[in-house]
Amino acid sequence: MGISRRNFLTRVGQVGGYTAAFVAMQSLGLLPVAESAAEPIAAADGVGNGVDVVVLGGGVAGLTTAYEARKLGYSVTLLEARHRPGGRAWSARNGDVVEFVDGARQPITWSQGLYQNMGAARLPSVHHTMLNYCRELNVPLEVEINTSRSTLLQNDNVNGGKPYLQRKVINDTRGLISELLAKAVTGGALDQEISPEDRERLIEALRRYGALNRDGHYVGCDRAGISRYPGAGPQSMIVSNDPIPLHALLDANFWNAELSEEVWDWQATMLQPVGGMQQISNALARSLGPVVIYSAPVTEIAKTARGVRVAYETAGVQHSIETNYAVCTMPLTILRKIRADLDADHRRVVQNAQYGSFCKIPWESRRFWETDYNIYGGLSFLSQGPSPVWYPSASLMSERGIIVSGYMDEFSGGFDQLTMQEKFDASRAQVEKLHPGHGKELEKPIFCGWGHIRWNEGSWIEGLSQQDYNTITAPDGPIYFAGDHTSHLVGWQEGAALSGKRAVQMISNKVSVARLEGKHIAAISA
Amino acid sequence: MGISRRNFLTRVGQVGGYTAAFVAMQSLGLLPVAESAAEPIAAADGVGNGVDVVVLGGGVAGLTTAYEARKLGYSVTLLEARHRPGGRAWSARNGDVVEFVDGARQPITWSQGLYQNMGAARLPSVHHTMLNYCRELNVPLEVEINTSRSTLLQNDNVNGGKPYLQRKVINDTRGLISELLAKAVTGGALDQEISPEDRERLIEALRRYGALNRDGHYVGCDRAGISRYPGAGPQSMIVSNDPIPLHALLDANFWNAELSEEVWDWQATMLQPVGGMQQISNALARSLGPVVIYSAPVTEIAKTARGVRVAYETAGVQHSIETNYAVCTMPLTILRKIRADLDADHRRVVQNAQYGSFCKIPWESRRFWETDYNIYGGLSFLSQGPSPVWYPSASLMSERGIIVSGYMDEFSGGFDQLTMQEKFDASRAQVEKLHPGHGKELEKPIFCGWGHIRWNEGSWIEGLSQQDYNTITAPDGPIYFAGDHTSHLVGWQEGAALSGKRAVQMISNKVSVARLEGKHIAAISA
Repeated sequence: MGISRRNFLTRVGQVGGYTAAFVAMQSLGLLPVAESAAEPIAAADGVGNGVDVVVLGGGVAGLTTAYEARKLGYSVTLLEARHRPGGRAWSARNGDVVEFVDGARQPITWSQGLYQNMGAARLPSVHHTMLNYCRELNVPLEVEINTSRSTLLQNDNVNGGKPYLQRKVINDTRGLISELLAKAVTGGALDQEISPEDRERLIEALRRYGALNRDGHYVGCDRAGISRYPGAGPQSMIVSNDPIPLHALLDANFWNAELSEEVWDWQATMLQPVGGMQQISNALARSLGPVVIYSAPVTEIAKTARGVRVAYETAGVQHSIETNYAVCTMPLTILRKIRADLDADHRRVVQNAQYGSFCKIPWESRRFWETDYNIYGGLSFLSQGPSPVWYPSASLMSERGIIVSGYMDEFSGGFDQLTMQEKFDASRAQVEKLHPGHGKELEKPIFCGWGHIRWNEGSWIEGLSQQDYNTITAPDGPIYFAGDHTSHLVGWQEGAALSGKRAVQMISNKVSVARLEGKHIAAISA
Repeated sequence: MGISRRNFLTRVGQVGGYTAAFVAMQSLGLLPVAESAAEPIAAADGVGNGVDVVVLGGGVAGLTTAYEARKLGYSVTLLEARHRPGGRAWSARNGDVVEFVDGARQPITWSQGLYQNMGAARLPSVHHTMLNYCRELNVPLEVEINTSRSTLLQNDNVNGGKPYLQRKVINDTRGLISELLAKAVTGGALDQEISPEDRERLIEALRRYGALNRDGHYVGCDRAGISRYPGAGPQSMIVSNDPIPLHALLDANFWNAELSEEVWDWQATMLQPVGGMQQISNALARSLGPVVIYSAPVTEIAKTARGVRVAYETAGVQHSIETNYAVCTMPLTILRKIRADLDADHRRVVQNAQYGSFCKIPWESRRFWETDYNIYGGLSFLSQGPSPVWYPSASLMSERGIIVSGYMDEFSGGFDQLTMQEKFDASRAQVEKLHPGHGKELEKPIFCGWGHIRWNEGSWIEGLSQQDYNTITAPDGPIYFAGDHTSHLVGWQEGAALSGKRAVQMISNKVSVARLEGKHIAAISA
């Protein structure tokens, strides 16, 4: 660049005013950023004036790229292969069709008002960027119930295959562990570790933590479950006094399921847009208006003297567009199928990238889980076969809903070897295991296997090496890459959005420097 | 009664048909009841035809009593002292007034659309009776966020008074306990308790449960918190590696707060009606129509030859109503202020009952907890002074909201000794402790101290002996008692509703027997 960091900041200050210098300093790590705020792009207002950007793909990464680029004055075109925005952030409903690359089509015929988020379905409250878009674009949110103590954990080899309530597993585990530790501390086993002052306090704390009785034993507690509900008059609560034995808990091996609520980006509070995850993409697309060209699959990406030429097709007609920069947000599984003028390193990563094949199997049903099991949202986990069973958080207490039975990679456990009917049978059987007699209430199943879905052919990238990650997160001349696969939040909208903002940041850095160096706009992407 | 249980059932079958016999058997415990279903009242259709019931008080207990009695054919009148239904299930908003018995009035001037549930604010998903009314009366529900890992725990004497994130306290606790137990097991301290086979499995389980490192140490984990957010390109997540020391955790004594999410009726999923808890009472009242007489405080309850005479007042005019049965749902604090023809035992309980004085201190504010702290609903707990701070679950991401700072008995910690201004100052200071710089954003505080509230003079009953409970849950001739104080769910709408249903059940049992014995309706309450 030929200018020092300090000089760069000074010059940005001259061109863009104080705000530009401020955000540039933030982006260089010189100023603290409030932990919960989405970081703005560090570029001067209007930095993109007169500069063209073509965005390839209208999922969250592409929409974000276009949205942020437009804010900064870039002339933006977004090409999307489908007739709708959102990519995997798809809230499928009556009239939609699941289309596989092999031509198989599953039309969705669920009752009006019902939908399923086939891909992205959770908004953690720590994902500032996505929440910020919801705020900016007035997308109403509601709670996504990611954990509920009334949901179930099941293992064919434990408890005769009968499921346990999560409240029981979670609180019996805590009780048993507390009892064992209290015993060890009392017996002096940890005298080297714990001061005499703390020993008594720890034993008392464990009594409360684990709900131990006077003798330091765990014999069940209301947290884990009751055998009689408290009521009016003489009807007092009776607590269940049959904790799961430690041996059975170890057999059950529920740890992942039991602790899923503590995974950093699965922790309460989780949110979802009212009416489906796609509402965020819809809102971004609405604000972009004619910038987005739908049903326009890209057919070629070529480098040119002034930047990039992108060819695409609409209704059988070929088009071509010249641009300073292209931001490619297509899945690498799709990118590798078209002619693209990439350097050897980028080509290699695109060719070799591995993608997972996660699927969801949603069904329409009467909400028996609410009426008969007090289950309002949340997930039940099964140790064998398709899992989890995921109950809807939307439209609680309405008549019918969409329940997912199976959300896993289809190549795990040989699920991919089953016929479609066998897949549905296996999915239904899981609900029957958890809710005997109710499997038959499920109808209108859909197998949304992302590995087969047209324009995706994969759920998300897996196993990318650090070297390949470095390659794909760096531009190839005027071609930039975005998408959750260019972030440390693979499979999350937040990663897609941050990658889109990063692409705009990188392009703007380049444009800013070129402007400072007095280059002509037509030459800045070179 | 002069008839055996079997005879009773046979005769009910004759009078009411199979359904009546079936529900009667259920109520006598002879048939199982589905765990999640609200139990129907065991009485023949139309059992109440020609029988009068007057219900005193239009809170949840009174409304439920009237609603259920009407279903069975009783002629019902409900007298309510206030101009609205719901009692403590009060969703206060702009235009409402908090009225104290001493004449003090606090008009509420919050922005349009904002409200605070001043009393009942939580619907646990295990409270079947209330949920059933929501279903029956089409009251839309949303999630009440009772726990959020982004909320705070604070103790003046720990961490320099700086609050901890709940995600940190909860997961550091689990990590430290797992490390200690793994160490004890490895050292052989629990060889008597745990089989050799289970020992290794337990150590491995603790590694996952507590997120221990290879060496079995807990050094922090993403569950507990991160110091850098994962992002796009090179920005990977950095996990915080500064667990709270065991000694500090023991000093902090956060156990109650930390485990509040596990209390049986505080466990996820928790619900609330859209638009405020009072929506349930409003729906019950709407369905009762002219049955409910508002602004009609009861002035006397007298036993008569044919039942009860209830005197009440509307707009300064005295009225009197003769009835077969009265169901008194008024707080005992209010009942004891009016002339009531009670036997010595009931009079004693009514006179001596002790009530708590819980208060809530809500404020209007910009939702800085959402924009600046990722806090969407949930509660923060403080170890000294008013607590908890309760963030709204309704209208997430809107501009303004009502935040509660202090929900506790005002007689704890001498809070009752403060002037109103000092109370508000103390309440605001708690928000400032948790969210420095934001205390000043709070405005329009209300002190809703239920001990002072007209027509309540207490939040809920406390310390009732078993003997007194037995007395007040039994009728005094034709006078029955309902209300959460006559249930094992004190302070819960569920207890109020179940007590109302129980009153109708007891009256119906009496009416059924009288009918079977051929008594004249006019004589059946005698």
